[in-house]
Amino acid sequence: MDITFRDHIERANQLAFQRLLEADPIWVNVGRAIDVIPGMTKNMILHAGPPIEWERMCPTLKNGMIGGALYEGWIKNPEQMEELVHRGEILFHPCHDHDAVGSMAGITTPSMWVYVVEERRRGGRAYSGVYEGRGKTLAFGCYEQETIDRLRWMDKNLGPILRRVVGTFKEGLPLKPILAKAVHMGDECHNRYVASTLWFVDLLIKGLLSLDISNAQIEAIYRFMTGEHYNSFLTLSMAGCKAMAEAFHHVLGSSMVTVMARNGTDFGIKISGLGEKWFTSPAKKVEGLYYPGHGDNEANPDIGDSTITETVGLGGFALVAAPATMQIVGKSLEEAIMLVQEMREITIGENETFTLPYMDFQGTPTGIDLLKVVETNITPVCVTAIASTLPNTGMIGAGFVRQPMGAFHEALKTFVAELKRNMDKEKDL
Amino acid sequence: MDITFRDHIERANQLAFQRLLEADPIWVNVGRAIDVIPGMTKNMILHAGPPIEWERMCPTLKNGMIGGALYEGWIKNPEQMEELVHRGEILFHPCHDHDAVGSMAGITTPSMWVYVVEERRRGGRAYSGVYEGRGKTLAFGCYEQETIDRLRWMDKNLGPILRRVVGTFKEGLPLKPILAKAVHMGDECHNRYVASTLWFVDLLIKGLLSLDISNAQIEAIYRFMTGEHYNSFLTLSMAGCKAMAEAFHHVLGSSMVTVMARNGTDFGIKISGLGEKWFTSPAKKVEGLYYPGHGDNEANPDIGDSTITETVGLGGFALVAAPATMQIVGKSLEEAIMLVQEMREITIGENETFTLPYMDFQGTPTGIDLLKVVETNITPVCVTAIASTLPNTGMIGAGFVRQPMGAFHEALKTFVAELKRNMDKEKDL
Repeated sequence: MDITFRDHIERANQLAFQRLLEADPIWVNVGRAIDVIPGMTKNMILHAGPPIEWERMCPTLKNGMIGGALYEGWIKNPEQMEELVHRGEILFHPCHDHDAVGSMAGITTPSMWVYVVEERRRGGRAYSGVYEGRGKTLAFGCYEQETIDRLRWMDKNLGPILRRVVGTFKEGLPLKPILAKAVHMGDECHNRYVASTLWFVDLLIKGLLSLDISNAQIEAIYRFMTGEHYNSFLTLSMAGCKAMAEAFHHVLGSSMVTVMARNGTDFGIKISGLGEKWFTSPAKKVEGLYYPGHGDNEANPDIGDSTITETVGLGGFALVAAPATMQIVGKSLEEAIMLVQEMREITIGENETFTLPYMDFQGTPTGIDLLKVVETNITPVCVTAIASTLPNTGMIGAGFVRQPMGAFHEALKTFVAELKRNMDKEKDL
Repeated sequence: MDITFRDHIERANQLAFQRLLEADPIWVNVGRAIDVIPGMTKNMILHAGPPIEWERMCPTLKNGMIGGALYEGWIKNPEQMEELVHRGEILFHPCHDHDAVGSMAGITTPSMWVYVVEERRRGGRAYSGVYEGRGKTLAFGCYEQETIDRLRWMDKNLGPILRRVVGTFKEGLPLKPILAKAVHMGDECHNRYVASTLWFVDLLIKGLLSLDISNAQIEAIYRFMTGEHYNSFLTLSMAGCKAMAEAFHHVLGSSMVTVMARNGTDFGIKISGLGEKWFTSPAKKVEGLYYPGHGDNEANPDIGDSTITETVGLGGFALVAAPATMQIVGKSLEEAIMLVQEMREITIGENETFTLPYMDFQGTPTGIDLLKVVETNITPVCVTAIASTLPNTGMIGAGFVRQPMGAFHEALKTFVAELKRNMDKEKDL
């Protein structure tokens, strides 16, 4: 590659990296998807990962879609789903194509409540569904009555109150301080959100107590948000990370990865300098630990938009921050340190906000560079939950994925072609 | 020392150590000191550390005493304190001589509210004042109106409600799980209690919400318990640690240290096999960091019963668990690891409940052995807050103390004399 173009890319990446570091995501609102997500229509289901047609969808995604359609009342029973799809009346779009992200299957239907996060430096907004839990949820491919009932309860009791709570925070709720503190308290902020959820509910309860609602209402919301092992900050964090990622997307000439996402069939990425084009390759199997009674044979391949956390320097890129996650993914302290060091080879720099106490308070490796990935042949490491391919089963384990190289090779081809096109343009001038 | 007696001591220490490990402290009640602390009388002030007469008391302790007397209405202004003391109408006793512990000055007057913790295995109880905060408190030698007003607010609004809250926990509130989780989340549980306080208030708020009281009352209590940098679990933890320490006190022949405490003038210890006798030497200066505008010249020597945490394997003995404390006491990761390793040389074993994620989940060094301290010439390391010698100033910093050897030498003399006495008795049989 031409030296001049190297310089050009490096300058673009430094600009993009600076935008990533400066990004300041603030929780400002919560609303129904149809009311707040740009481009959302009333016959649309958003899902995790790159675009995919119904036939190629993995079981977890299909099952989540069925749950979404049942919840919206588009079908009365799961068997009607195929017919609905084949009538062509439903649009399936990636969350990411609407500035949104979704946990696991990422199912977001028009009337579901989503967090709205604003990035204060550049003014962008990002969205993610209010956390359903880890149990029998749409996110994990469930559609039974319990799943639908929970969503109805959230719609009636949680969403409207959360909107009043966020209204009590004068300038909204800054998310970075919560993430930064949590990384010092055992969270890597992808698989583990215990400390961050404790900080989050500490702010939430103060807001709740300032509203004129009953103790019983407050208690129900508080218990919901702390239930399922104190993990509810996950989706608000994801919206925050997406807002940070948007801040450095669309930097002309930048080779930085701004989206990594999986739909359970494909793994896909977007590149800052290449706009909205997806580059994909088959999603991988997750190496992990299973809950008793579950195993490999039942595991869906890697799924979810939650890798937006690794995209901004959290999750696997902060693995050493979280001994509990290290144990789940079967990595010793030495291995975790080596993985974090390895991620430095494919990133632009250190995150000044997310620092690792047990690595001399160095920042986490942040800002994945497509060129470095291909040159070093090292792909990003992500930690993740594992969904069952069986419907109505929920989370069956958690583990570790090293993402496939194919998508990066695909992206590089386009990146080089774009470079050449720009070079030719310059020559013409 | 005779081999047989070595064996005897080792057996006694193993028994004591087992009792320490098995101890299960449960928060069961809260009440006024006069109503719940054994031997408390209505003209008594309990204080931190070993016994001390008024004339030898350090400024922080004297100032705290003045605050206590003002709060009880025994004096109308600070100047009356000397006269009250010289009339001989007030008794000054160590908290530890009443199964209690107190933070910093440890001032506990008859009408102050104290936590009651029960040790479930052996049935003992321990006590510690409800946390006043880090600001202008009795604990830090303050006696101005703000201090007295806070105590009155606590008396009226906090104590009675906390009693109702603890009543909502069917079997009381087990403290060890909170401490164990916190040691994995950046607390060493002496200087830093952020994670443990978050877990504590998470339980507290659920209790509060189940009571028939107003949102405003709940909010005031919640804000008080999370104020002052999320440190309120400190004194409940101290009562819990004291309950654990009592469980292995009074084991005949055991050379284990069951009390380490400082009154700001003297450092004192008790030994399991030597009953209620104190062994003392001068309290040391704390090596630490000061808040802006404060410094060495103003620092009171080492003070407080909070070293009960080191006595059961927390605080300095878990230093590597808490990067934030390591920074405050100026220790690098390597130095913190070395200090924890060093503490293994003077302790009986590993704590199976408090484990260190970044030292291969090894247990913290636990159960200080008087004999090992003297033989190795290594004394316990403690982390601690620093109080001002000036009245009404509050906390001025935090730091690190290596406790003085003198008290251990004193204790050894008595321990050996007791051994000889027992040996002679056996010969007589």
